[in-house]
Amino acid sequence: MINTRYTTATNSIFSQITQYCAQYSSNTNNAPVLSLGVGDTVLPIAPCVATAMADACMQLSDIHRFVGYGSEYGLPQYLGAIQHYYNSMQVYLDTSEIFASDGAISQLCDIMDILTGSVIAVPNPSYPVYRDTNWLAGKTIVALQDDNALSALPTQHVDIIYLCNPTNPTGMCYNSTQLQQWVNYCIEHHCIMIYDSAYSNFVRHNLPRSIYQIPGAQQCCIEICSLSKSASFTGIRCGYTVVPHALTNANKAWRQRLSYKTNGVGYIAQIGASMALSECGLAYSRTCIDYYHNNATRLQKVITANLRLQSSGGIHSPYLWVHCPQTMDSWQLFHYLLDNYGIVTLPGVGMGTAGQGHIRVSSFCLQDTVTKIEERLSNAETIW
Amino acid sequence: MINTRYTTATNSIFSQITQYCAQYSSNTNNAPVLSLGVGDTVLPIAPCVATAMADACMQLSDIHRFVGYGSEYGLPQYLGAIQHYYNSMQVYLDTSEIFASDGAISQLCDIMDILTGSVIAVPNPSYPVYRDTNWLAGKTIVALQDDNALSALPTQHVDIIYLCNPTNPTGMCYNSTQLQQWVNYCIEHHCIMIYDSAYSNFVRHNLPRSIYQIPGAQQCCIEICSLSKSASFTGIRCGYTVVPHALTNANKAWRQRLSYKTNGVGYIAQIGASMALSECGLAYSRTCIDYYHNNATRLQKVITANLRLQSSGGIHSPYLWVHCPQTMDSWQLFHYLLDNYGIVTLPGVGMGTAGQGHIRVSSFCLQDTVTKIEERLSNAETIW
Repeated sequence: MINTRYTTATNSIFSQITQYCAQYSSNTNNAPVLSLGVGDTVLPIAPCVATAMADACMQLSDIHRFVGYGSEYGLPQYLGAIQHYYNSMQVYLDTSEIFASDGAISQLCDIMDILTGSVIAVPNPSYPVYRDTNWLAGKTIVALQDDNALSALPTQHVDIIYLCNPTNPTGMCYNSTQLQQWVNYCIEHHCIMIYDSAYSNFVRHNLPRSIYQIPGAQQCCIEICSLSKSASFTGIRCGYTVVPHALTNANKAWRQRLSYKTNGVGYIAQIGASMALSECGLAYSRTCIDYYHNNATRLQKVITANLRLQSSGGIHSPYLWVHCPQTMDSWQLFHYLLDNYGIVTLPGVGMGTAGQGHIRVSSFCLQDTVTKIEERLSNAETIW
Repeated sequence: MINTRYTTATNSIFSQITQYCAQYSSNTNNAPVLSLGVGDTVLPIAPCVATAMADACMQLSDIHRFVGYGSEYGLPQYLGAIQHYYNSMQVYLDTSEIFASDGAISQLCDIMDILTGSVIAVPNPSYPVYRDTNWLAGKTIVALQDDNALSALPTQHVDIIYLCNPTNPTGMCYNSTQLQQWVNYCIEHHCIMIYDSAYSNFVRHNLPRSIYQIPGAQQCCIEICSLSKSASFTGIRCGYTVVPHALTNANKAWRQRLSYKTNGVGYIAQIGASMALSECGLAYSRTCIDYYHNNATRLQKVITANLRLQSSGGIHSPYLWVHCPQTMDSWQLFHYLLDNYGIVTLPGVGMGTAGQGHIRVSSFCLQDTVTKIEERLSNAETIW
């Protein structure tokens, strides 16, 4: 009566890390944990966002201004704010192509409801949700070859491709030429791309932030984004999904799904998200991203100098992709750093077999944490 | 590439009503619509709930008090508040059996992820989500016979039963003896019951509000509840789902699903929901429910006296189940009341074939709306 795929599934990599941390912390002789593991924001939300949401809370206690059910598709002012934000990237969407969400994770799973493909390509390594949700649904998973911390195009026919840009966990960024190849592949193979742009605000210079900056993408790509990382919304839960009209029938199907199976996203979260995409919210967001970029630079430096380990990423991404010494695998380096320095990272192998031999280091931490890490590693005597 | 079940699905009954209302309102000669259609709350949230949520918003803008990702299972203080609330009904649950949700609708759909049954029983009539989500998944739907606005037990083997108590749309309430028969059926047939208790706060006297007040229920029942109707959370989106440990493997499977596919429910909504289940929140909730009960009594009276129509329900429920005159079906009476009096109701047939010949009248409206309805109907000349 119970789907055994769920009861036999192992704990997620994030739960596993949390368990090891708890174990380590239970020994009171150990130094406090410094966490660079789970990619959770530490900077607060923008003051203008907080005030707008607090006002919305009080509004709901006023009989003359109370609002109940909203549109399943999203609050018009939120959809308008997203549309305006895309305009700044020279991407022009109709608000009927944009849908409010409670964050990326649910959308990355639920989108499969409206798609019929059975062969699903996922980068190796990548955010485990792509693989797990499709494994739980009994789909065939094709792991994309790793090509210097980016993914190579599929070598066989696939129905659906998940692509995250900037990449997670490898912290890299595809350029326009590369993305155009992916879009071309999708058009040729009648394949749909689920483009995860959760980290798009970390992209610098003129690299693309939305897949719709690539010609042809509206015919074959669904873009899923979250305000979690850019606006510290990890706890608030708000994001959006773009399903273009040019992707035949997908918009109608998604609209029907939302209308049949949901009552939309919370009003207060959407009011906050609208403000997060306003001029004031975006300006604040840029200062947060600079802060995390600066952490990444410092972390990269200390890892190179004191641990004598190579890394990539961290430029267009909050994540550093650190290469393990030849004598250690992902979990060994994870435990080495936890046991000797109280530093928590993410074992790359937890994000896919090709992540073996790497750890992911998150720059989502306070500057003070980076300083402490620099101190703890200042006299590091590496055993490799 | 796109699941055609979604593209061929008709618009939901709620969208259809909204369309007719818009049509009616576009004629500026028409009186303003008085809505008794969609069951959306109109009374504001409790002041103590609003203040707690507003404080939570400001907390998130303070670097020292910011919180990011929470548990996928729910905020401990919210789970504790739910546990305490159940204790008041002499139901004793462990907090690990309770899960925060963003309201009932998503849970009524998502729960099917962890269940393998293919024959699904749904009351006829009932909340369309039970039927629709399973039709979209290609399951076999068995419509339960109507038995005086309640449902009769299945006459064949079924794997899963959806049951809503108090019932929607018929506005009735099962007593303990009746519910015991349903639980016994489930145990005998190794069937799982998905018990929708969204309207449980409208139950008066000593009738059961939770299925777990019935011996044996923990072995076979999952209870899905929402704060939408009792705490005016329709726009805020928060509820909970109970998956008992006694229901073998279900708790583990649901836990894994949440951990693989979600990042939990928004912090602010959960802070508000915790307060809604506090003494202060529950006291406010009772005044709102009394208010809607009083509306139902007045609406029942004017419908009997001036429209000369019989109705049931409205005692343990916000809904009246009004019998159409012999000369009209559900949609005809719906249009008659809209076109002649500007009163919006819900055609019973939209909730299932056995709803034909009825309309649902919601008491979720302001007292002032009831007064206007009494005025508009005061000289009603019924054509039947």
